[in-house]
Amino acid sequence: MLLTMRDDQELGRITLAQVAKKAGVSLSTVSKVLNGRQDVAAPTRLKVERLLEAHAYRRTTRSAQEAPLIELVFHELDSIWAMELIRGVQNVAKDHQAGVVLTESGTRQAPGPDWIEGVLQRRPLGVVLVFSALPAEVKQQLRSRSIPFVIVDPAGDPDPDVPSVGSANWSGGLAATRHLIESGHRRIGIITGPDDMLCSLARLDGYRSAMSMAGLETDPDLVLYGDFHVEGGYEGTRKLLGLPRPPTAIFAGSDLQALGALEAARVSGLRVPHDLSVVGYDDVPVARWSSPALTTVHQPLRQMAEEATQMLLRMRAQEPVTTRLELATSLVVRKSTAPPRD
Amino acid sequence: MLLTMRDDQELGRITLAQVAKKAGVSLSTVSKVLNGRQDVAAPTRLKVERLLEAHAYRRTTRSAQEAPLIELVFHELDSIWAMELIRGVQNVAKDHQAGVVLTESGTRQAPGPDWIEGVLQRRPLGVVLVFSALPAEVKQQLRSRSIPFVIVDPAGDPDPDVPSVGSANWSGGLAATRHLIESGHRRIGIITGPDDMLCSLARLDGYRSAMSMAGLETDPDLVLYGDFHVEGGYEGTRKLLGLPRPPTAIFAGSDLQALGALEAARVSGLRVPHDLSVVGYDDVPVARWSSPALTTVHQPLRQMAEEATQMLLRMRAQEPVTTRLELATSLVVRKSTAPPRD
Repeated sequence: MLLTMRDDQELGRITLAQVAKKAGVSLSTVSKVLNGRQDVAAPTRLKVERLLEAHAYRRTTRSAQEAPLIELVFHELDSIWAMELIRGVQNVAKDHQAGVVLTESGTRQAPGPDWIEGVLQRRPLGVVLVFSALPAEVKQQLRSRSIPFVIVDPAGDPDPDVPSVGSANWSGGLAATRHLIESGHRRIGIITGPDDMLCSLARLDGYRSAMSMAGLETDPDLVLYGDFHVEGGYEGTRKLLGLPRPPTAIFAGSDLQALGALEAARVSGLRVPHDLSVVGYDDVPVARWSSPALTTVHQPLRQMAEEATQMLLRMRAQEPVTTRLELATSLVVRKSTAPPRD
Repeated sequence: MLLTMRDDQELGRITLAQVAKKAGVSLSTVSKVLNGRQDVAAPTRLKVERLLEAHAYRRTTRSAQEAPLIELVFHELDSIWAMELIRGVQNVAKDHQAGVVLTESGTRQAPGPDWIEGVLQRRPLGVVLVFSALPAEVKQQLRSRSIPFVIVDPAGDPDPDVPSVGSANWSGGLAATRHLIESGHRRIGIITGPDDMLCSLARLDGYRSAMSMAGLETDPDLVLYGDFHVEGGYEGTRKLLGLPRPPTAIFAGSDLQALGALEAARVSGLRVPHDLSVVGYDDVPVARWSSPALTTVHQPLRQMAEEATQMLLRMRAQEPVTTRLELATSLVVRKSTAPPRD
């Protein structure tokens, strides 16, 4: 195994020298570009990146023999989504004897500038990013090294330029609201997520469509924006229950917001589902454990991460992949919904 | 950076050849041993391992320059402990610009044989294991390569031969029970974990000591063993509530068992804490989100993982470390406990 590696390193060295010669630069400049260093003039970097791209296959093989890694980059490891996504990547990585490297970086939209150097050093089989966007420079750095990357995007706002896996947020909002209407509810409140996240808007639009298809008016007082956390659900529900005509059911927009709704109901002396029905969204494990267990929209987070990792491996094998894969959501009926009392 | 690496590889190559020569074996045999392959006779492997150990410092440096990694190995990624432990390792790794590689392997007691080959190939800065025990052969393989390893052991059953970080389970059980006694409860039930886990027994002994120090008898009908999952808490609580003289408070042994206790109370038409007090254990995030929020024993999982990772880095720098570090637990009073009704 080690001997094979050494052979590849020999080949790798010849290639790097050739790259330097062809680009008319020193080996040290090629090395700087390879390591993602910033102190190389842009035209030089571009020339070297392109030459590296042409020789990518050989380096690829070597990296795979050393110790195959798949990178998973998050904005927020604390997110309730994180564990399910880690599981999904891990499931596929295990089948390919690859390790999974976790990184936490950046904002909800894009990773910070700090992570790319580590990735370029580790030369993974591929990178799964839980973000909406990637800076153009990072895309080029990964592409020139033949490191495939896929975005898993539970927020529903994908960069059209990057292969991504999401899920059907509009249909999920529609299904949640329809379930409440079919149970006999007419005054249905919604607490969706932040108004700058496409998935919030898609879930809200699904709610509106279900209401209007059933011939029900959408009372603007019953539409609130939250934060996708427990606090947002608690405060939204307190507000809705304080209305002159409170709703008999709430579509809480996320499981954490649904937990906040349960606590607001308890504090107000209301029993769920007898006095108030609550529907969550995501179907993370805590939805099964709450009291009562949550009726919720299953977002297939683990499967989304599995699909993204499979896509990476197909891209690596130069097989064609779809640019955008959207997995179906489905309603899971548990114990937090019932017909209204009256 | 790359040029420096190449220099180190030259040195590395000389060393491996020297090892082969000194051991009187071929370079290919040295390579097999390095990669953890099983097709080398035991005495030969031992000889090579010892020689490698003597030359470990140089290889160490090289690995650190390539792409520093810290390995985290779990039995069960689904465990509610997992996310907090990942966070802790990540926090320290980030400060040292190291990536974190996650592996899921083996049983609750020890990792399976499959993971070691990956670790030996990746040559990480160190390995954090969430297990009680390690096979002797694995310890030797890691030691001969100067890869330090530490066990994080929330189950409280550490291998005395390996540095480990745990927490004070007996004191936690004592604090939980004392809180209920001080609130005025006299009939207090306990659902501890499986009877083959030391942490279950330590928490139960803490309960017994608190009861006897308060001059209260421990009714054997009120002592149950669970599974540390929601189901165990649900079934145990149903059983306790079905007794001719049910308890007014339950120490549920884990947060998940406490969630099961809340659901059993709800199904029995009892309000928590008005009709029944419940105390959890662990203080994982879900304890704050439940309705009502759980009074629980805080097990500093994140800090335990941080300490374990710091220990690795100290071992790597050849600084002395304690063999067993036990962090304090502390009671967190929230809304699931109150004085008994009568």
